[in-house]
Amino acid sequence: MAKHIPTEGGLRRTKSAERRAEILEHTITLFAEQGTDASLRAIGGAIGVSHAALRYYFASRDELLVEVYRSHENERREQPAPRHASAVASMTRSAERNASIPGLVELYATLTTDALHAARHPVTHEFILNRFRRVRSELSEKVRESQLSGDLPADLDSEDVAALVTAASDGLQLQWLVDPEAVDPRRSLALLDHLLQPNEGPVL
Amino acid sequence: MAKHIPTEGGLRRTKSAERRAEILEHTITLFAEQGTDASLRAIGGAIGVSHAALRYYFASRDELLVEVYRSHENERREQPAPRHASAVASMTRSAERNASIPGLVELYATLTTDALHAARHPVTHEFILNRFRRVRSELSEKVRESQLSGDLPADLDSEDVAALVTAASDGLQLQWLVDPEAVDPRRSLALLDHLLQPNEGPVL
Repeated sequence: MAKHIPTEGGLRRTKSAERRAEILEHTITLFAEQGTDASLRAIGGAIGVSHAALRYYFASRDELLVEVYRSHENERREQPAPRHASAVASMTRSAERNASIPGLVELYATLTTDALHAARHPVTHEFILNRFRRVRSELSEKVRESQLSGDLPADLDSEDVAALVTAASDGLQLQWLVDPEAVDPRRSLALLDHLLQPNEGPVL
Repeated sequence: MAKHIPTEGGLRRTKSAERRAEILEHTITLFAEQGTDASLRAIGGAIGVSHAALRYYFASRDELLVEVYRSHENERREQPAPRHASAVASMTRSAERNASIPGLVELYATLTTDALHAARHPVTHEFILNRFRRVRSELSEKVRESQLSGDLPADLDSEDVAALVTAASDGLQLQWLVDPEAVDPRRSLALLDHLLQPNEGPVL
């Protein structure tokens, strides 16, 4: 694997960043095919990277998992939802993008499950805690904007709505992956949107 | 451990059932303390049961995890929600019970994550698939009853509502466990109940 570890100046930085991106990409494919419960060593074996090389880029399995997810999320955040999309509409948009990348919803489920054990998975816990806070805060702001413009009833607590919309989207993606014929996240999210904005037309 | 394996007739059945129940109980305590990612062998070591004895009761780690969850769920199903509780109210009730048992929400998160990989976790996938179907079907029936009695708008699709309520409850419990100060599942579920039954009084 030594030939993959670059050795000079700028070239090193470029090659190193490329190599890191390559590992992230191969890892998500592996997750889609084989699940996320492999060790860092097993991941290295499966994607053809030595354990030492993998450790050069990622301190632990948890860090690799978090970075794979973060790289996809950053990509998605570069294409934000339209300015006036409702909280539910922008969550639906991101749920649909997640679903289109094989392995990503599985990875997200693994990260949120690992995050429940902060002592064993401190890096994952920190990442998921902050991600949930950021997602809720962004949705909450969207809700307050819609309340100011009269599109949402003013008596709803924006933070309770934000937690609800986030939860609904997460939970629906999970049910859909387990039983794709039985659950359509888009329909249930459209229903939630309709419940929040009762005057915005019929349910899907 | 041999003394724990009973050897005669009725006594065998009773002792065997007791021993099995004991293992299930110790396992949930272990999950609460140390997380759910241990192997069957490690679980045996931690709860003081030999690997052979554990295998006598459970064919695999997945089967043990499923049976621990099932035993708690069966207990809960023996005390059903009041006849006229709304779909959301009965889900809230079960969410609160889950939250009161340390380790149970973590176990549920592990099972749903494992279930995403049917090939690696066939027993878990089968269990979670059927559980989701049963939960949605029970909630869907409750929704249709409420629609007949005029408590819920007739234009809502009962299966979409059932998937939404299940998802909201699952997702909120997860957010709450990661960040207990920031999220109150009861408030967001009460909000959903209010959205579904707009004439039933103010939001919590």
